[in-house]
Amino acid sequence: MNPRNRLNFSGGPGALPESVLLQVQEAIIEVPEAGLSILGISHRSDWFAAVITELESNIRALLGLTKDYHVLLLQGGATQQFSMVPMTLLRGASSAAEYLHTGYWSGKALPEAQREGPVRVLWSGEDNGFTRLPDDDELAFSEDSSYLHYASNETVEGLQFHRVLGKDNVPRVCDMSSDFLSIPCAAERFSLIYAHAQKNIGPAGVTVVLVRDALLQHAPEDLPGFLDYRCHAKTHSNYNTPPVFSIYVVLLVTRWLMNEIGGVENMARINQDKATLLYGMLDSSDGFYRGRAREQDRSLMNVTFNLPTPELENRFLAKAQAAGFSGLAGHRAVGGIRASIYNALTLPAVEMLAGFMADFQRREI
Amino acid sequence: MNPRNRLNFSGGPGALPESVLLQVQEAIIEVPEAGLSILGISHRSDWFAAVITELESNIRALLGLTKDYHVLLLQGGATQQFSMVPMTLLRGASSAAEYLHTGYWSGKALPEAQREGPVRVLWSGEDNGFTRLPDDDELAFSEDSSYLHYASNETVEGLQFHRVLGKDNVPRVCDMSSDFLSIPCAAERFSLIYAHAQKNIGPAGVTVVLVRDALLQHAPEDLPGFLDYRCHAKTHSNYNTPPVFSIYVVLLVTRWLMNEIGGVENMARINQDKATLLYGMLDSSDGFYRGRAREQDRSLMNVTFNLPTPELENRFLAKAQAAGFSGLAGHRAVGGIRASIYNALTLPAVEMLAGFMADFQRREI
Repeated sequence: MNPRNRLNFSGGPGALPESVLLQVQEAIIEVPEAGLSILGISHRSDWFAAVITELESNIRALLGLTKDYHVLLLQGGATQQFSMVPMTLLRGASSAAEYLHTGYWSGKALPEAQREGPVRVLWSGEDNGFTRLPDDDELAFSEDSSYLHYASNETVEGLQFHRVLGKDNVPRVCDMSSDFLSIPCAAERFSLIYAHAQKNIGPAGVTVVLVRDALLQHAPEDLPGFLDYRCHAKTHSNYNTPPVFSIYVVLLVTRWLMNEIGGVENMARINQDKATLLYGMLDSSDGFYRGRAREQDRSLMNVTFNLPTPELENRFLAKAQAAGFSGLAGHRAVGGIRASIYNALTLPAVEMLAGFMADFQRREI
Repeated sequence: MNPRNRLNFSGGPGALPESVLLQVQEAIIEVPEAGLSILGISHRSDWFAAVITELESNIRALLGLTKDYHVLLLQGGATQQFSMVPMTLLRGASSAAEYLHTGYWSGKALPEAQREGPVRVLWSGEDNGFTRLPDDDELAFSEDSSYLHYASNETVEGLQFHRVLGKDNVPRVCDMSSDFLSIPCAAERFSLIYAHAQKNIGPAGVTVVLVRDALLQHAPEDLPGFLDYRCHAKTHSNYNTPPVFSIYVVLLVTRWLMNEIGGVENMARINQDKATLLYGMLDSSDGFYRGRAREQDRSLMNVTFNLPTPELENRFLAKAQAAGFSGLAGHRAVGGIRASIYNALTLPAVEMLAGFMADFQRREI
């Protein structure tokens, strides 16, 4: 096995579990149950129908989803969802949708929604440089919005909501791209959840959407089929040729999560331990490592921080690279350092990073 | 190597070259130049920028494309193009677009275009059960259409145009999903060509679009970014996270086409030999194997035929399966037998199928 994969702290596409990579490697030549390369199997085969069935069922089991949710596997990433959500829920609506602008990615969703109908930005972190999330007393949710949209985790800034927002009588729509299946998410309190795969659950090219059937009842009738959730729901995500390979990898990741990790609660405990270790490192560094996010809003997935000078940051990144770590440079929008510790990053890998950080600090001071 | 991959005659996703599969298998653990699993490499890395640059350049070289074309790598398959084309070229237009309805797939493009603007169906093969393509004297192209749209190859019916249609002053838009890079296509005579990968050039999940820059000058300004060709052109197909894995596989296939096959002309000769062999088999079978398509419209990619009875067809499929062949069942819309002989199917594999067919006929008569 290639040791660099274990130390891949990239913000995404991110690392996948080693046992999954080994199964994928085998499947490139032959999927055991199908006798063919995964890249040459028809999406209309019985084998692929079984893949979809099992994957839907695994996601339902992992989140305790009830029958009234569709589990969809789409293309186009979160970006396509930025548009599909308001096309479905806001086009022609009279009451505004409420959006939170808490960072780079929730900001990207705004103009796409504004194209489709009235949008009220309930809170923006722009003034504070997106270093914190809103407190409850800053959020005056209205009773009659079309829906509420927010991102549960901001990958770029390293901010994460540790509570469910909004009012129960307004549909909650949440971009969970970067923390889906990393912690329990109270899925039943949301009307629509979307998550692209390339953080915690698979390779780029497939997006999971969980949507309550009732939410789709008043969707416009004239949407192109591939932008209409109902078309994908009716066909069990086989409306047009789906990304067979990416979907299969997501299936393998859900099996790993169920059988090797033991479910989302166990995963959350491991993720908490990893984050505690790294944030502890920042907090005990006497200001050498400076966490970007306000303490109570810190992300369990993306640990963002700065060093005293840009020169030190560059030296840190170069030495980390030489030591076998990768993907630690902060997002180009904010710079600094970002350690993304998605599900596949193991506690021993995070311990190695913490060790490296301690060592680096010792030598530089 | 798994011998069944060599005998995979599936209509798509289809077989890929063995040498490509071996490189992909290695890349799942480690891409040699990047030191990481292909599934965990950032789409913002220098390595991936180089992948895009080389792939664009390979496609340009293989087709002799001039600089005024963009080479784009999108998601959503041909289905998304059925919508993106008329959103870009027909929304708000006063003159109709001309569409040919020559089979299952060109038929799917029609309602999506009609959603966006006026469409004139210039010719439909519906009355003859899509067993032939139009002759020149059946096609009265007008001088002032917004554009002409047709499919160069109908995968389901096994029909292929062996000439370029339309008038030079009307933009030609062509769905080449099932014969792209299998024969020279006179690309410079088209304003827009699209092709999903899963027939000749890669796995499902990525679509190649070649589009003349001039065609995009009057596109609507209010399209969502992911549906706007200009956004993808400006960012070299990195507008939002692209399907890194699928794009990398397409790169490997273009390298194979250039270095192992020796270019599209050589590929076309091999494809012609394969098709000649199978059609010769049909024509010399004394009516046992009955070609579906009119002789002059026969596809080099999808050889479709029937046997004297449905019972014989089922026996044929079962015995073929037992002999190691797969994917030979006709599309669910038309039934019968379909041997798809895309680029990665070798002449020896087609010879084995011809041998099996001769043998089957001998035993059954």
